[in-house]
Amino acid sequence: MHKAIGIGLIGTGFMGKCHALAFRAAPAVFEGLPPVRLARLADVDPAVTERAAARWGFAAWTTDWQALVTDPAVDLVAITTPNFLHQPMALAALAAGKHVYCEKPLALDAAGAKQMAEAAAAAGRRTLVGYNYLRNPLLRLAKELIEAGELGEVRHFRGTHFEDYMSDPAAPHSWRTVKATAGAGALGDLGSHCISLARYLCGEVAAVQGAVQTLVPARPVPGADGQLKPVDVDDQAQALLRFASGAAGTLEASWNAAGRKMGLTVEVTGHKGALLLDYERMNELRLFTFGDRKRLDGFKTILAGPEHPDFAPFCPAPGHGLGFNDLKVIEVKALLEGLAGGQPPSPDFAEAARIAQVVEAILRSAAEGRWVEVATV
Amino acid sequence: MHKAIGIGLIGTGFMGKCHALAFRAAPAVFEGLPPVRLARLADVDPAVTERAAARWGFAAWTTDWQALVTDPAVDLVAITTPNFLHQPMALAALAAGKHVYCEKPLALDAAGAKQMAEAAAAAGRRTLVGYNYLRNPLLRLAKELIEAGELGEVRHFRGTHFEDYMSDPAAPHSWRTVKATAGAGALGDLGSHCISLARYLCGEVAAVQGAVQTLVPARPVPGADGQLKPVDVDDQAQALLRFASGAAGTLEASWNAAGRKMGLTVEVTGHKGALLLDYERMNELRLFTFGDRKRLDGFKTILAGPEHPDFAPFCPAPGHGLGFNDLKVIEVKALLEGLAGGQPPSPDFAEAARIAQVVEAILRSAAEGRWVEVATV
Amino acid sequence: MHKAIGIGLIGTGFMGKCHALAFRAAPAVFEGLPPVRLARLADVDPAVTERAAARWGFAAWTTDWQALVTDPAVDLVAITTPNFLHQPMALAALAAGKHVYCEKPLALDAAGAKQMAEAAAAAGRRTLVGYNYLRNPLLRLAKELIEAGELGEVRHFRGTHFEDYMSDPAAPHSWRTVKATAGAGALGDLGSHCISLARYLCGEVAAVQGAVQTLVPARPVPGADGQLKPVDVDDQAQALLRFASGAAGTLEASWNAAGRKMGLTVEVTGHKGALLLDYERMNELRLFTFGDRKRLDGFKTILAGPEHPDFAPFCPAPGHGLGFNDLKVIEVKALLEGLAGGQPPSPDFAEAARIAQVVEAILRSAAEGRWVEVATV
Amino acid sequence: MHKAIGIGLIGTGFMGKCHALAFRAAPAVFEGLPPVRLARLADVDPAVTERAAARWGFAAWTTDWQALVTDPAVDLVAITTPNFLHQPMALAALAAGKHVYCEKPLALDAAGAKQMAEAAAAAGRRTLVGYNYLRNPLLRLAKELIEAGELGEVRHFRGTHFEDYMSDPAAPHSWRTVKATAGAGALGDLGSHCISLARYLCGEVAAVQGAVQTLVPARPVPGADGQLKPVDVDDQAQALLRFASGAAGTLEASWNAAGRKMGLTVEVTGHKGALLLDYERMNELRLFTFGDRKRLDGFKTILAGPEHPDFAPFCPAPGHGLGFNDLKVIEVKALLEGLAGGQPPSPDFAEAARIAQVVEAILRSAAEGRWVEVATV
Repeated sequence: MHKAIGIGLIGTGFMGKCHALAFRAAPAVFEGLPPVRLARLADVDPAVTERAAARWGFAAWTTDWQALVTDPAVDLVAITTPNFLHQPMALAALAAGKHVYCEKPLALDAAGAKQMAEAAAAAGRRTLVGYNYLRNPLLRLAKELIEAGELGEVRHFRGTHFEDYMSDPAAPHSWRTVKATAGAGALGDLGSHCISLARYLCGEVAAVQGAVQTLVPARPVPGADGQLKPVDVDDQAQALLRFASGAAGTLEASWNAAGRKMGLTVEVTGHKGALLLDYERMNELRLFTFGDRKRLDGFKTILAGPEHPDFAPFCPAPGHGLGFNDLKVIEVKALLEGLAGGQPPSPDFAEAARIAQVVEAILRSAAEGRWVEVATV
Repeated sequence: MHKAIGIGLIGTGFMGKCHALAFRAAPAVFEGLPPVRLARLADVDPAVTERAAARWGFAAWTTDWQALVTDPAVDLVAITTPNFLHQPMALAALAAGKHVYCEKPLALDAAGAKQMAEAAAAAGRRTLVGYNYLRNPLLRLAKELIEAGELGEVRHFRGTHFEDYMSDPAAPHSWRTVKATAGAGALGDLGSHCISLARYLCGEVAAVQGAVQTLVPARPVPGADGQLKPVDVDDQAQALLRFASGAAGTLEASWNAAGRKMGLTVEVTGHKGALLLDYERMNELRLFTFGDRKRLDGFKTILAGPEHPDFAPFCPAPGHGLGFNDLKVIEVKALLEGLAGGQPPSPDFAEAARIAQVVEAILRSAAEGRWVEVATV
Repeated sequence: MHKAIGIGLIGTGFMGKCHALAFRAAPAVFEGLPPVRLARLADVDPAVTERAAARWGFAAWTTDWQALVTDPAVDLVAITTPNFLHQPMALAALAAGKHVYCEKPLALDAAGAKQMAEAAAAAGRRTLVGYNYLRNPLLRLAKELIEAGELGEVRHFRGTHFEDYMSDPAAPHSWRTVKATAGAGALGDLGSHCISLARYLCGEVAAVQGAVQTLVPARPVPGADGQLKPVDVDDQAQALLRFASGAAGTLEASWNAAGRKMGLTVEVTGHKGALLLDYERMNELRLFTFGDRKRLDGFKTILAGPEHPDFAPFCPAPGHGLGFNDLKVIEVKALLEGLAGGQPPSPDFAEAARIAQVVEAILRSAAEGRWVEVATV
Repeated sequence: MHKAIGIGLIGTGFMGKCHALAFRAAPAVFEGLPPVRLARLADVDPAVTERAAARWGFAAWTTDWQALVTDPAVDLVAITTPNFLHQPMALAALAAGKHVYCEKPLALDAAGAKQMAEAAAAAGRRTLVGYNYLRNPLLRLAKELIEAGELGEVRHFRGTHFEDYMSDPAAPHSWRTVKATAGAGALGDLGSHCISLARYLCGEVAAVQGAVQTLVPARPVPGADGQLKPVDVDDQAQALLRFASGAAGTLEASWNAAGRKMGLTVEVTGHKGALLLDYERMNELRLFTFGDRKRLDGFKTILAGPEHPDFAPFCPAPGHGLGFNDLKVIEVKALLEGLAGGQPPSPDFAEAARIAQVVEAILRSAAEGRWVEVATV
């Protein structure tokens, strides 16, 4: 029997709650996981934090994240704060000897991410970055199919992450719309997810040619009576990709993509077949392979089910789909297994630093109007 | 602050786990729910039950369900056993003064369901039956749209529940394939879900004309070396419906519907519009209404999001879909609110008895080749 | 070289034009067809008819259909008039020794259809009824798959023909809304198409249990200042089907199906697979078969292409879809082949009389509230 | 009454037949068109040409295209030959005083296209280039919506033309796989269609950054016993686009896109909405606009119907879709109207030369690894 792992969670917002629910669910959904102790919760507003701690079952709470990261009851620090806080919090947690589970993007730039990866290596602690869309059982199936050669030689990748939460010019200015606190705009917030999937399915991105646009150059400051403040990050981004394998591709991100609510899509094509995954229908994998009877060829729609990785513990019945939050439960399962001595969780800080390099290469390419090798960033 | 509600759960299978996960999640997902205490778990296999109790966080376990239903630590008995056990367990729990949360179908026949409803009324206890597909936020939106008159006068309902888990003639004989232990076949197991949605959206079913077929007349007995045993329940069923409102409709159920994994669908049509919901894409509601500009008319695909009932506590972002298990979390939320003095949970035993009447009317109609009024069953 | 076949076309409306275009196209699309001579066109309005004759290339025109059916230049009479005119025109044409190509439904009732079939047999002339949706290359593929046993034993059929052109209560009274001139309402106009497909795929319908509703009991008389006139035909119809093969099924028709523009759908399920065809996406066949690798099972979407019957003469490229009018071109091709000594065109009057029997059995069943054997109608 | 326009058609292959069918159909489908006389057909094989002429109704035929372009009976020369023949044939036809209707791509490069445009201007003849996908009624609707501001300011275009007819490495070497006879590969054959739609919807492309790949470097020579010959054109291409309007975009083309049969897609996004068109479902336009009731927002699927440009003459019923060949009929209608003194047909040679410039800019950019301004090509 494993000793319970003490969880310290920083952040009570969208992703904070998502983490909390996942830590509660994972040990009950999956067999053989180490038990989890919800040790401490931190956020800035005491009333909110206290109520959340009670509701989510945390034993203690604080408004001082530094107290949390040094708390002896905490073995793992989970970071769900705004981007610019990831680096100081993670470094402090590693310095205190904790494992770290950090939301994406890892840092504000590639240098920051690299520093975090080096700190993790030096500390000998386990890390995981919350690229949760990697946990989709059908994405796992997709990778297995690619690795088994079912698509033949992969020649083409096409990915997007389109949402529309900033489509309205009246959507407010925030830490997300400032380079100094967000690192990048839609490319960092959404595009980095798509890069995580591109790498997972097709291997390293070798070079990029990018373009970025700021469509809404200034946005209203909340509570400031219509006062506008300049935006210095991208609203949408496009890139041509060249993979180390030689495959070509494109990648796009936008938070101004009117009508798209979860427009994370990937398409991989080889000379023998192709597959598509669209996270607005995340329980469906579309698969095409040339068959013996050409008249029966067509894209097949495979519904997620217990035959696919990590699905069965949720439900023994196929087509009874998983939800967005379930992906986090699978992520936490991989994390806990890693902490209990299993396979190191992935993507760790080092891998997330590779993703940050791709983001930065696209931004640099866009600024300089030329192809940029990712390795040089 | 509410006193914690002691949960006694009977059954550790598919739905048992689904209940356990939901009881763990609901008080963390939703604000203001009474706390829950996972008091006791019961099932027949001691090793399985002990492990499940540990994993799911139950304080105690037993192989004696009668001990569970009389356990003073238990306030609510949740029943997830095979159909034929629902009635004795629920009656015993009510007799012991417990609230009862029972999986569907409620009983083996309409008479049994009626008896259970009467016992619940006599005991003055709260009951809820697990017609979990009623909890879909988009179904709730559908009902609001209908009630607001957006479809005009409702004239037509069309529903199915198609799955294919018995499609293979080698799928084994079990309690599900025997009338004495299951009550009905696909019509009871799946069709009853569809009836629950039909009633929710369109009101009471007044009369039915049904047909049922047993496609695989005998199935192999597990572990009996290929020995076949007769099946006396339906593999598929069809019915014409007449609603009390005057609307017409059809309903079909099959567990031999090759290719369908979660083929619960409803379509409601009025003179001003129509809507469709397909649970293989349960995060999408398709809505048509005649507009001012005919050339722009078309079915709209609405993605579930925080604007829809009960969605926001899971995720503030639209299109980040819910999963099958999340429906049970919403169901448990409604249950706990009801137990804490809020609106009585629905469908309770009395409502579930109405559903049982529709099932039985279809079976009787099929046997007699004529229309059967539901009220007379 | 064949002698050119002289075509006499009655009707210049929707289907009249569709016929004219098809007669112009078929001999150019398909190789080896006998040449066609557009001999004469008839309709009631001389100006309209003259202009249409010029535009469509008819050598002559008339407002006297009786002159057309006895015109020696006419070998084949094509009838596209309102339903109540089919019978007298076809009988006159047969009496004059012509082949007859008649739009559906063949007659106002089963007796009328039978009489027409007998007249055709007595005259020894070729007949074809315009159930054009039978011509879809993917429907032909579907039938081949069923006959080859790819779905296993067929157990279930589910069909609809839903459109919404009468959904608006202000849609005017016309010959279509009167039993004496239309025979039936949505069931005859649309449902008969679906019956033609059901028979094609699954064989004869043995018995039915039907229900019909008149949703709009009176409609405005055109040009009569809002005056309403009663409607005595169905706006929507439902039926349970029992096929001679033992398969069960359902069939529905409605012209009040808000949002459906070409909602002709068929689903056929066997124990090894299933297929679906929806004429709003008539270039897509959805096919499911259980495979060796359960995790890769799913419905496949097959796009129409030159590998499918009758497609290649239109286009050598797959996915470059056919349109509604192209189905009529294929129908005319089958007709011309039949007239040139090839396989008799199907469905002829005798087969269309079988379809009329099914329609009538549903109406009788609806009136009497019991199952009706089709053979007895 | 117009004098009949004499048509001289060169080519009897895929597009030759498509033209022939369209010339037969257009004057019958549409009212008010000038009559057409199918004067002469030319191709290299006498037997094939003679049979095609007979089947399609041409008065004469020849194997000498030069005889055709100078034939006094010919007013319009339609060119459907391999790419490298477009320029000499069109120039000869213009020199002979004929109007010219030429398949795409217009020439082998931008310089050739420009020369053709200048020759047409000098000759004062009407020209049209066969970018047939521009004729889709729903594309016309899309443009009207964009122009009416329904999407707000357009910020993003995303287009593809993916097919898979060269996916198989054994697909043979031909004039299509040689730069000297084709000009470009997938980018010219397919990508040029997508460019035609991009320009139509979003205006001129100002600059591009492209990448191209030859995936199958050598292909078998037909009839040469497995002998391989090098391929010097692209199998797939990607480009970032910058429109004159300031909008950004991407464009991709591939004839190795396994599973795609008619993968021409366009997506246009503004700050108020978005629309999508996929030619595998060419009768469906997907439209999103932000509405007053956020909970009802979603993409609407609009089915083509008589309310949309040029649809009604084919069929008065919505959802009764058009086919691929029907687009050519609409194209021919626009051509004939232009020849009869109406609006000049578009895209003429001058516009097609703009498309050729975009193709060439992408190729140059790919070679030089930098952004290329289209105007400078």
